[in-house]
Amino acid sequence: MSGHMSPEEFRRFGRQVVDWIADYYAGIESHPVRSQVRPGQVRAQLPAHPPERGEPFEQVLRDLDAVLMPGVTHWQHPNFFAYFPANATGPAILGDLLSSGLGVQGMVWATSPACTELETVVVDWLAELLGLPEHFRTDAAGGGVIQDSASSAALVAALAALHRASGGRVAREGITRRHTLYVSAHTHSSLERAARMVGVGADNVRVVDVDPATLGMDPAHLAALIAEDLAAGAVPTMVCATVGTTSTTAIDPVRAIGEVCRARGVWLHVDAAYAGVAAVCPELRWINDGVAEFADSYCTNPHKWLLTNFDCSVLWMADRAPMIDALSILPEYLRNPATTSGEVIDYRDWQVPLGRRFRSLKLWSVLRWYGAEGLREHIRGTIGLAQEFASWVRDDPRFELLEPHPFALVCFRPRFPELSTEEADERIFAIMESLNESGELYLTHTKVDGRMLLRVAIGSPQTEQRHVRAAWKRIQEAFTA
Amino acid sequence: MSGHMSPEEFRRFGRQVVDWIADYYAGIESHPVRSQVRPGQVRAQLPAHPPERGEPFEQVLRDLDAVLMPGVTHWQHPNFFAYFPANATGPAILGDLLSSGLGVQGMVWATSPACTELETVVVDWLAELLGLPEHFRTDAAGGGVIQDSASSAALVAALAALHRASGGRVAREGITRRHTLYVSAHTHSSLERAARMVGVGADNVRVVDVDPATLGMDPAHLAALIAEDLAAGAVPTMVCATVGTTSTTAIDPVRAIGEVCRARGVWLHVDAAYAGVAAVCPELRWINDGVAEFADSYCTNPHKWLLTNFDCSVLWMADRAPMIDALSILPEYLRNPATTSGEVIDYRDWQVPLGRRFRSLKLWSVLRWYGAEGLREHIRGTIGLAQEFASWVRDDPRFELLEPHPFALVCFRPRFPELSTEEADERIFAIMESLNESGELYLTHTKVDGRMLLRVAIGSPQTEQRHVRAAWKRIQEAFTA
Repeated sequence: MSGHMSPEEFRRFGRQVVDWIADYYAGIESHPVRSQVRPGQVRAQLPAHPPERGEPFEQVLRDLDAVLMPGVTHWQHPNFFAYFPANATGPAILGDLLSSGLGVQGMVWATSPACTELETVVVDWLAELLGLPEHFRTDAAGGGVIQDSASSAALVAALAALHRASGGRVAREGITRRHTLYVSAHTHSSLERAARMVGVGADNVRVVDVDPATLGMDPAHLAALIAEDLAAGAVPTMVCATVGTTSTTAIDPVRAIGEVCRARGVWLHVDAAYAGVAAVCPELRWINDGVAEFADSYCTNPHKWLLTNFDCSVLWMADRAPMIDALSILPEYLRNPATTSGEVIDYRDWQVPLGRRFRSLKLWSVLRWYGAEGLREHIRGTIGLAQEFASWVRDDPRFELLEPHPFALVCFRPRFPELSTEEADERIFAIMESLNESGELYLTHTKVDGRMLLRVAIGSPQTEQRHVRAAWKRIQEAFTA
Repeated sequence: MSGHMSPEEFRRFGRQVVDWIADYYAGIESHPVRSQVRPGQVRAQLPAHPPERGEPFEQVLRDLDAVLMPGVTHWQHPNFFAYFPANATGPAILGDLLSSGLGVQGMVWATSPACTELETVVVDWLAELLGLPEHFRTDAAGGGVIQDSASSAALVAALAALHRASGGRVAREGITRRHTLYVSAHTHSSLERAARMVGVGADNVRVVDVDPATLGMDPAHLAALIAEDLAAGAVPTMVCATVGTTSTTAIDPVRAIGEVCRARGVWLHVDAAYAGVAAVCPELRWINDGVAEFADSYCTNPHKWLLTNFDCSVLWMADRAPMIDALSILPEYLRNPATTSGEVIDYRDWQVPLGRRFRSLKLWSVLRWYGAEGLREHIRGTIGLAQEFASWVRDDPRFELLEPHPFALVCFRPRFPELSTEEADERIFAIMESLNESGELYLTHTKVDGRMLLRVAIGSPQTEQRHVRAAWKRIQEAFTA
């Protein structure tokens, strides 16, 4: 057998992997952006059974190139304009490597104090960088925590909201009344999933109308629905306002929504998964208007647009107590003097899983490598490219542009005046698929008011103006051929 | 500002980090096992505010050494005998590094087919290695998926169980009846947490008696509780049987429990988080007796004892349909031809978060590097060391040994005949703390029948016989001084 990999072997193979990654980024443009494999193609090339004997590490790297790489869609490719970006950068990758190498498990403070304390420091730093309120800091009543994703953050927020709304009854007795959650048609699907997971049920997720011009949630309709539900004996429990929806980066009016929530004692969760990080730029802090006064919880994902590889989503609480009360259990084998003293934070009470990686290392590494300046430059640079792209769309009468587009996502629709909406949608989807199949660029779509829109999300650190220009040229050709 | 790290810079700093990790493992014994910092000590040495300008990467490494390392508890240290092991190994770390480097997000098949297909292959491989039943394989009705932790796996299992028990009603309407879950006093706390999270409530978690000799769940008492709950109008929804409890690695009688579940149509989840991987050794397959016939879901963690760094917990379903039905939502922006065709797996429907890392790379790397042979050697080797340790405890009349101890955890209690149980417990805890404070070794405790036991968990790839021998000597001295 192979035995364990010695430190000297690790040094050797580690360099090979580092070189592999450096070469990957240096040559990333040689790959088609979206994988061109058919379902089952990768799997068919892998052995049906595990190896009986250990194999040299070089064979893993060989199969990575030969078998896996054709099946990889390159999220870091400069021509990846799909979904939202999932930035990976050198300092993040190396911070993550340190986390894997140390292999500590920071479930409670005592199991690795640095894992907890660095996390406290970096989430407080990030709150400062984004201009989030003082009460979100750990030294106040609130505090931030790194989650794997905004979905898990929404789940934790919903559990805290249920705890508060039920006076702790839900944790003990379970759901015994009809609790209602409020979203708009543009809220991320993870909120409906959270409602299903916490036992509230999809039918109790109320869909608030949006302003047709801004696609933002209508606070008057929200107030009406809450009143209706209260009258029917339900417990309005949580509203999710979104800063930068997944579909089009629309912004819900957080302040007006917050006033409704405050009046009714309803928890306000703000999902700024994509756009929240833009507030590193002071000129974009307006997107969080109302957060300081009204948000009970707030989430944004450095793993999308802030140069930190997945997974790194930060959730802040205005008051951490309901979350901790909802999630805390102390079995005997986790009892330790530090926890008992109450002097420390045990982040296991702030999340779904018990175990946790040293994820703050990668965020720390990113914040230090880039500094506030570098982060702002990335946000401004990618927004600048998107605005330029949008101006080209606006200037071409064969396309219609969705306004506003304050971030780095541009939504637009090719005009097919001779076709019905349905026919046009089919045509647009088919042409988009052929573009994506070409491997030259990758974009996705959404639907607004029943009409299909193309989405071009700019954000990869690899993307330069020439890539955006070429993408626009290719899109123009494809849709006007 | 620093700008993005170029591939050449990444190559340079990547080598520094690889060397740092290799040096760390080469010199790991020079560190105290458990960190000796006081609460707040690490944080106090870090700047209160984030840097405005980017800093050289070397400064991150410098602060890692100077500020963070004193606050790290060394889970990979050969004298780490606390909790359960959290194995990190060279091939796992490098597989994880490849995942960070590629930076793909495998939420659905289409967003990186290799991420999905490699996962299918490796979880099927692992099922084969562990002798798990054919119907757990993806080509049958079941299938496996990598989760972050056994806690999240239990949550997913509970959601699938609720879905089945309610005929899908819970997902739509939420919890509208009293659902009950069944555990023993030795079941992991994540099950009570799952019950709280899904809206069942802690009060509806029924604690089944255990056989005092084996600490395994009593199937007759389980049957009685279920009958009682049914008579009271509740919906018995899920039983969690544990193969290798956290406290003492006790094994619940899965077959007898399964028969009770089958008779009542109750979902059987088997939590084998720590011990399940031991079944790579054919002589240990008996631990899963009854799983093939009765388990609806089964979970084990390669990130504990199978040489794969956190996070990597594998959850298998006998029938994946209830889980997918409970968790699936398809928003427009995730629609794609592959998903619509039904030809592919979209693992986002198998987990709490939407996004996902390419975690199968690290498990693949481990399974190939070690081969089945190497995995068995690790399990047998660590069990052998534990059995040797247990024999020393058994031979020393000043200690009492908890039997049985089929895995690599040994629980025992120093005898203090002159003290009451309470006084003895205090003494044991205090001496354990002083041992842990010494930095020479790290062990934890549990309570069984109201009496404190010490736990020595062996499992680090770094641990050799000399470490176990020295630990025993140190423990003997400390408790008999």
